[in-house]
Amino acid sequence: MTLQNSLERLRALLGKRLVTSGSDIDLHGQNETHFAPMPPDAVAYPENTDEVSQIIKICAAGHLPVIGWGAGTSLEGHALAAQGGIVVDFSRMNKVLDLNADDLDVTVQPGITREALNTELRATGLFFPIDPGANASLGGMASTRASGTTAVRYGTMRDNVMGLEVVLADGRIIKTGGRARKSSAGYDLTALFVGAEGTLGLITALTLKLYGQPEAVSSAICAFETIDAAVNTVITTIQMGIPMARIEFVDEATARAFNGYSGANMPEKPHLMLEFHGSETSVAEDAARVGEIVVEMGGTDFKWSSKTEDRNALWHMRHNAYYAALSLKPGATAVVTDICVPISRLAQAVNESRADIERSGLPGPILGHVGDGNFHAVLLITPGDEGEKRTALNLSHRMAERALALGGTVTGEHGIGMGKLDFMQAEHGDGWQVMSEIKRALDPENLMNPGKVVRQN
Amino acid sequence: MTLQNSLERLRALLGKRLVTSGSDIDLHGQNETHFAPMPPDAVAYPENTDEVSQIIKICAAGHLPVIGWGAGTSLEGHALAAQGGIVVDFSRMNKVLDLNADDLDVTVQPGITREALNTELRATGLFFPIDPGANASLGGMASTRASGTTAVRYGTMRDNVMGLEVVLADGRIIKTGGRARKSSAGYDLTALFVGAEGTLGLITALTLKLYGQPEAVSSAICAFETIDAAVNTVITTIQMGIPMARIEFVDEATARAFNGYSGANMPEKPHLMLEFHGSETSVAEDAARVGEIVVEMGGTDFKWSSKTEDRNALWHMRHNAYYAALSLKPGATAVVTDICVPISRLAQAVNESRADIERSGLPGPILGHVGDGNFHAVLLITPGDEGEKRTALNLSHRMAERALALGGTVTGEHGIGMGKLDFMQAEHGDGWQVMSEIKRALDPENLMNPGKVVRQN
Repeated sequence: MTLQNSLERLRALLGKRLVTSGSDIDLHGQNETHFAPMPPDAVAYPENTDEVSQIIKICAAGHLPVIGWGAGTSLEGHALAAQGGIVVDFSRMNKVLDLNADDLDVTVQPGITREALNTELRATGLFFPIDPGANASLGGMASTRASGTTAVRYGTMRDNVMGLEVVLADGRIIKTGGRARKSSAGYDLTALFVGAEGTLGLITALTLKLYGQPEAVSSAICAFETIDAAVNTVITTIQMGIPMARIEFVDEATARAFNGYSGANMPEKPHLMLEFHGSETSVAEDAARVGEIVVEMGGTDFKWSSKTEDRNALWHMRHNAYYAALSLKPGATAVVTDICVPISRLAQAVNESRADIERSGLPGPILGHVGDGNFHAVLLITPGDEGEKRTALNLSHRMAERALALGGTVTGEHGIGMGKLDFMQAEHGDGWQVMSEIKRALDPENLMNPGKVVRQN
Repeated sequence: MTLQNSLERLRALLGKRLVTSGSDIDLHGQNETHFAPMPPDAVAYPENTDEVSQIIKICAAGHLPVIGWGAGTSLEGHALAAQGGIVVDFSRMNKVLDLNADDLDVTVQPGITREALNTELRATGLFFPIDPGANASLGGMASTRASGTTAVRYGTMRDNVMGLEVVLADGRIIKTGGRARKSSAGYDLTALFVGAEGTLGLITALTLKLYGQPEAVSSAICAFETIDAAVNTVITTIQMGIPMARIEFVDEATARAFNGYSGANMPEKPHLMLEFHGSETSVAEDAARVGEIVVEMGGTDFKWSSKTEDRNALWHMRHNAYYAALSLKPGATAVVTDICVPISRLAQAVNESRADIERSGLPGPILGHVGDGNFHAVLLITPGDEGEKRTALNLSHRMAERALALGGTVTGEHGIGMGKLDFMQAEHGDGWQVMSEIKRALDPENLMNPGKVVRQN
């Protein structure tokens, strides 16, 4: 079947909800970071699971790649049409399907964003806590196994997706997991599809865990003389079992960026930003105990607050860190990279990365979710400057190698996409081969988001 | 190759650590519940991963099934040699390999039991919380995705295994996951092997999350007039976000058994048993808040205590529930069954099961981990009485069907083994087929614990 035949069949199915030319194609060939655009042959906008199944069957018959698209906020080129094909844009599948407040779960379509979901949940007193920063879609967040600032308390998408509906490479629709809080009934297919980046099938519905909005929330910020002192504070806090909802690290370059971009007035030193969820008594107690640890570790300027406006200002600033970083070099774009190491190696990993970035001459703030041992560098480059881009990618590669040398992983939350494929063999050894064997079993023609996560011939 | 050839090769590898006759064979053909004995052709006692790999290669060449064996405490016939073959007993691979107190993780061999692990950890102030009741091995607990009384706070084995070493069906040794607290680097192979019941490979090492021993612990017990009142107390407690470490339900039949077996003096009514972990202030506050909910729901006799001896007595009684239940019918054995439903359907599921058991005339206490919606029935039968066994299995089957009808799962924590295989199609639909496809990709000859979890020809 020719491409033209397949597109005709898709058009018969979708009508105007199949787009084959114009700016929409370009938009779906772009990404948030440094990858060259790779436009698809067409963009499809399904409205239900059955249409997704039909699309995949048509693509299978025509040997066309199929790539899922949520909000387009991924950082490693996950949704680029590396081998052409059809991008399936889930923006019309963005509904809450089934809310069970008593059971603290909700089933949603993949196109709903986390902000839209939380807006819908507001009246129930419940919320979905995973917060990767960007207003990503839930399908995309599941596919990249996203996490973010709250993972130290609530876990990642791995921990919060209870069940899925997935359309496989041959168009079969399956359900994995379900609404029971736990199950020992066979292989954990839910966990297999979470983080598979659309290479094993497309997620068409997700059942998620919800949480009661905490009765009380307090937040805190403090400065440290050294990265080691900040990290040791985190280690002690975790070992003492003080339940934190967020514990974020920013380095001195990030503090400088906040001062410039958000009008903050922070000392240009490493900082921790914290949040506690619980009862009025417990959040006050937790903040006080962390305050004592901070003093012991030589931290200064420990301020905590249970005022909503203070907290919102703090996390608004943190969420804008990417834009604050960009402002350090006017007109710049960024290579954003992400590693995760055991927390005892975190200070070493940050210090070495910091020094490596300094030597390169590129501005590159470091910040991260230190409760998980996860941090990012935002490496600023001039658009079109191939030398700077090479320098940034080399820094990123050395960070990945450093993560592996320290017993960590080349990506804590951004995923593999096209950007980290070269490290899969080093991280997983023969385990990467096993991933390929699973991929081949479920997608023998290699049509589901080819060129990502695994290599398959 | 004949069986005799294979056994000779195994003997050349293992010497006296290969057993081919005598009581040891019988012992490894037995199980904790109602399945008929199925002895293996031999029992192998490897001492390291390389030997496990050699054993599997020899078995592959001789087309012999390979079945892992931990402590033999599983309840659904998981480790029975349904098609003969070699049982690999991990009792000599029971060491702590690598303890990282700063990172709150430990790597162990699969044969170590949870009690032995916690004894080794005692001096560090850390512990491993998963507690399925029996003193199971960690390899077995991972393979059945075990949980138990503490899952409501600490999760299940799914949530607490960070990485694995696995020997595959062709003898390849792979590592999955690792020591980073989270990762987005490819398919979640760790989650695939956790709960696979040894059908995809044998686990030869596990990296586990550890937790700081709580500063303070309090426990509580209270009685209710109805199952509904007890369950509604649980729902409200969870919705309010009160962090419980344990919340266990026992029905009136179990209370009666405790009175007889453990010399308790409980009213013969449904009860909840609770435990809180935290600071002195927080456990007192948590217990007080739950006490208020209990009163609201009409519960009585709410007693809480932060004394270690009270707590130990409570959980000792709970852990002996199986033996207490057996004492209700002298000389009896039991069919122990396990389902899990969304918590809003829990009262209905327990009430209907309770009524069904009453009608059958068999004694059958119900108890469970109600924070997860998970409960068990201990159905007491006279050994050798086929009629009673059929009655018990029918009750168990109806409980499984009830779980599915209420949006739950046929097993919350015991696993599939041989006992729940008939429900896999009903629970998973085409998803069960996908499990078979994965099994076939990784074990094309169907030699890893054949006859469990999936059907494969």
